[in-house]
Amino acid sequence: MSDQSEAPVTPVEAYEPPYYLAVFTTVRTQDQNGYGETNARMEELVRDIPGYLGMDHAQTPGELGITVAYFRDADALTEWRSNAEHRAAQQRGRAEWYQNYTLHVAKVERSHGFTRP
Amino acid sequence: MSDQSEAPVTPVEAYEPPYYLAVFTTVRTQDQNGYGETNARMEELVRDIPGYLGMDHAQTPGELGITVAYFRDADALTEWRSNAEHRAAQQRGRAEWYQNYTLHVAKVERSHGFTRP
Repeated sequence: MSDQSEAPVTPVEAYEPPYYLAVFTTVRTQDQNGYGETNARMEELVRDIPGYLGMDHAQTPGELGITVAYFRDADALTEWRSNAEHRAAQQRGRAEWYQNYTLHVAKVERSHGFTRP
Repeated sequence: MSDQSEAPVTPVEAYEPPYYLAVFTTVRTQDQNGYGETNARMEELVRDIPGYLGMDHAQTPGELGITVAYFRDADALTEWRSNAEHRAAQQRGRAEWYQNYTLHVAKVERSHGFTRP
């Protein structure tokens, strides 16, 4: 759920576990009317959730999209999940934008990062 | 770590929790010599790990790549992590192919899928 407009692109860092992540994998329909605006609004909204850590997004053109959102704890994720505007966007996603998707919510046990010296 | 050559593309399904996933987010260097062959070999190897469930991959051209690999349990992930050929590929990745990356290993607590009726 990012347009990756900022440069340079860097993956979200490896936080100290435990923390939570939500993997959202999608295949979109032909009808993407309104998707961009809603997506931008969701990116804005999620930043206000206390405990939100960041988001990675990648999209293979015409194929699979993956968004991974990171949260400090389960409460932060529950708050995001319960957000009324987010729920309305999800409903519209099922009605219009997504051919199929999968959501995996998971607790991070181990992480590390690498940056070229 | 997929070339997405099979059609149609579908996300890995929502398995019954608990299961494990590894999120691997990457920004690649200009030097991608040998990457494709190694990647194909890794995809072949991981399929032999007992408990391997599948893999999602998305790549925004020139920007972020995300690979998510799913495993039935922590042992399956440990076996994949300890594979000698995989370790050699990781080492070459750090030396040549990756500008930076992050790995998050997590235990899935909740999942669901949607397919357009």
